[in-house]
Amino acid sequence: MKKYNFSAGPAILPAEVMKEAGAACVNFNNSGFSILEISHRSADFSAVLAEAEALVREIGGIGEEFAVLFLSGGASSQFFMAPMNLLDDSGKAVYVDTGSWAAKAVKESKAFGPTEVLASSKADNYTHIPKGYTIPADATYLHLTSNNTIFGTQLAEYPETDVPLVVDMSSDMFSRPFPVDRFGIIYAGAQKNLGPAGVTLVIVRKDLLGKVDRHIPTMLNYNTHIEKGSTFNTPPVFPIYVMMLTLRWVKAQGGLEAVAKNNEEKAAVLYKEIDENPMFAGTVTQKEDRSLMNVTFVMADEYKELEGQFLEACKAAGCMSVKGHRSVGGFRASIYNAMPKEGIETLVKVMQDFRAAHA
Amino acid sequence: MKKYNFSAGPAILPAEVMKEAGAACVNFNNSGFSILEISHRSADFSAVLAEAEALVREIGGIGEEFAVLFLSGGASSQFFMAPMNLLDDSGKAVYVDTGSWAAKAVKESKAFGPTEVLASSKADNYTHIPKGYTIPADATYLHLTSNNTIFGTQLAEYPETDVPLVVDMSSDMFSRPFPVDRFGIIYAGAQKNLGPAGVTLVIVRKDLLGKVDRHIPTMLNYNTHIEKGSTFNTPPVFPIYVMMLTLRWVKAQGGLEAVAKNNEEKAAVLYKEIDENPMFAGTVTQKEDRSLMNVTFVMADEYKELEGQFLEACKAAGCMSVKGHRSVGGFRASIYNAMPKEGIETLVKVMQDFRAAHA
Ligand SMILES: Cc1ncc(COP(=O)(O)O)c(C=O)c1O
Ligand SMILES: Cc1ncc(COP(=O)(O)O)c(C=O)c1O
Ligand SMILES: [Mg+2]
Ligand SMILES: [Mg+2]
Ligand SMILES: [Mg+2]
Ligand SMILES: [Mg+2]
Repeated sequence: MKKYNFSAGPAILPAEVMKEAGAACVNFNNSGFSILEISHRSADFSAVLAEAEALVREIGGIGEEFAVLFLSGGASSQFFMAPMNLLDDSGKAVYVDTGSWAAKAVKESKAFGPTEVLASSKADNYTHIPKGYTIPADATYLHLTSNNTIFGTQLAEYPETDVPLVVDMSSDMFSRPFPVDRFGIIYAGAQKNLGPAGVTLVIVRKDLLGKVDRHIPTMLNYNTHIEKGSTFNTPPVFPIYVMMLTLRWVKAQGGLEAVAKNNEEKAAVLYKEIDENPMFAGTVTQKEDRSLMNVTFVMADEYKELEGQFLEACKAAGCMSVKGHRSVGGFRASIYNAMPKEGIETLVKVMQDFRAAHA
Repeated sequence: MKKYNFSAGPAILPAEVMKEAGAACVNFNNSGFSILEISHRSADFSAVLAEAEALVREIGGIGEEFAVLFLSGGASSQFFMAPMNLLDDSGKAVYVDTGSWAAKAVKESKAFGPTEVLASSKADNYTHIPKGYTIPADATYLHLTSNNTIFGTQLAEYPETDVPLVVDMSSDMFSRPFPVDRFGIIYAGAQKNLGPAGVTLVIVRKDLLGKVDRHIPTMLNYNTHIEKGSTFNTPPVFPIYVMMLTLRWVKAQGGLEAVAKNNEEKAAVLYKEIDENPMFAGTVTQKEDRSLMNVTFVMADEYKELEGQFLEACKAAGCMSVKGHRSVGGFRASIYNAMPKEGIETLVKVMQDFRAAHA
């Protein structure tokens, strides 16, 4: 039986990427050496790094005013690195609190300078994206979480503002086009749409840097990595390689427009079933806030006791990791770029069969 | 032709490890999923993490007073994380400057508190390990680099002292036994003896922590990772998995005593040829300082112009990456745990043939 991986992250990658990565562990580029043992300063790996950067720039339309960095430490390290590099007491960072990850970013920022939460949906357990807030024109940056992995919400649009956006795109990076010129920093842990765990893509507008005068340890200064092209020290060679393979795949899909169209179609099929099937209900209260990446839903009240049974039915049909995050409960189907339509169709079929059997 | 990888890092790993890692990229644990796509909170990966920790403890004789962490950011991040977590103005960190990496560690420490260099061999281009220095009894810690990857020197013994040792073991970790009870922190980028690039092994004596009262960003606080068993955020799943496989291999070799014996024998064969062959000369001035991991040597003065030709001869015989680091010149043969005796024999044969042809 074909199995589908609905895990929220680390998450499904294109099958051909995983296969090619496996082959490179034994013989990379026909060198007779494994990708796991080659120097990060070798010609073979320099080519990987250069291609990865070129693909990020091409796919995202990222110009030379931005640096493209491949760092480690996860998106969680960007929660503090962004304010450490951008914010001091003369500035003000503003945040929109749309979920647990956003709240963690707020917490880390506070140590580096004035940090204000413009809006929060926490009181509603993050079931919607707050709107209608005013962005202070003098803010140093506005931090947003583009997609809230746990709560299944996603920004439908980025605000129109001259304040540079610092955006945690961990769970929807390269799933749709974005207005590059509004961004100051984009960061994303690879382990959803971009590759395996162990590398974080960071895109930084260079002119924002070097303006705070605190001591920044060498490894935490974006400029260190910009100057050394992400090889100041040994970068995570294999995760970067697999990201490069994944970016090739994104390009081969036709780029972000094509990927976005596919993602919209996939999500529509699943949300339609959630809405139409009386046994299930979505958790996000405003339809325009629904995530195309993490589809969260629950058993309708009158069927709550069948939750465990539904998860068993999913597994039996090859739909793995459909259990929701503990802070939301219910179900979460993560349907990143690499999730094929057949995965969605299989899950919808399980829901329909479940309805036929129980409703 | 069999090729041997003498790279200083990322470096040779056991052939069976690379093969098993490659297979797991396609089908891990017979789950039908790749190791690259599984959740870091899955039962399958939790078992990997638990086994990796158990192997570190068993191989190194590491007791419960130490935490065993799998972090990212490379050894370079430990240069600042160690002082950030241990040092403040009421203390004093003392360092022995035995090479470029040691000097970088000194530089990062200075931002966090009084930092003193007890001894340095920099004036002699680090061709020996300084000795005879006095360790102040009131020092917070003594930082040492156990093996100087670039300069080919290695501490023959750790000093007898009550001051906790903070040791960068990046390039000789688990190549020989070490006196665990003298250590405060041991850290090692994996990409020499332990696995691929992308994970850093950190062993911390827990009672040293929590004594400085500066703000430490959550991700940079050792206690964060201790409390969450290295899964506060998404750890580098695949690099940790490959480290676990490599540790299994170390154990199967018979543990550190057996590995050390093998390493001594391998290095002895190569140093013997360097000494006896009139075309080559070692760069390390005191024989007891010679590294068993990175064997540095040069062309004897009268043959200097044959350097390029010797490197070609190495390549032709399958001995790859024998070129020395730019700050030392000449040659460097890195012969970590996974380098088989046949690799050394092949290189020695090249040296002998070169002598027969040219001397
Ligand atoms: C939106 C978002 N931000 C940040 C993180 C944390 O990323 P990491 O584990 O790479 O630190 C996650 C992880 O799931 C996430 O979904
Ligand atoms: C002794 C030593 N320390 C530190 C480092 C830096 O390690 P990383 O690249 O993991 O930051 C190296 C890298 O070669 C090294 O050999
Ligand atoms: Mg969230
Ligand atoms: Mg419904
Ligand atoms: Mg060195
Ligand atoms: Mg000689």
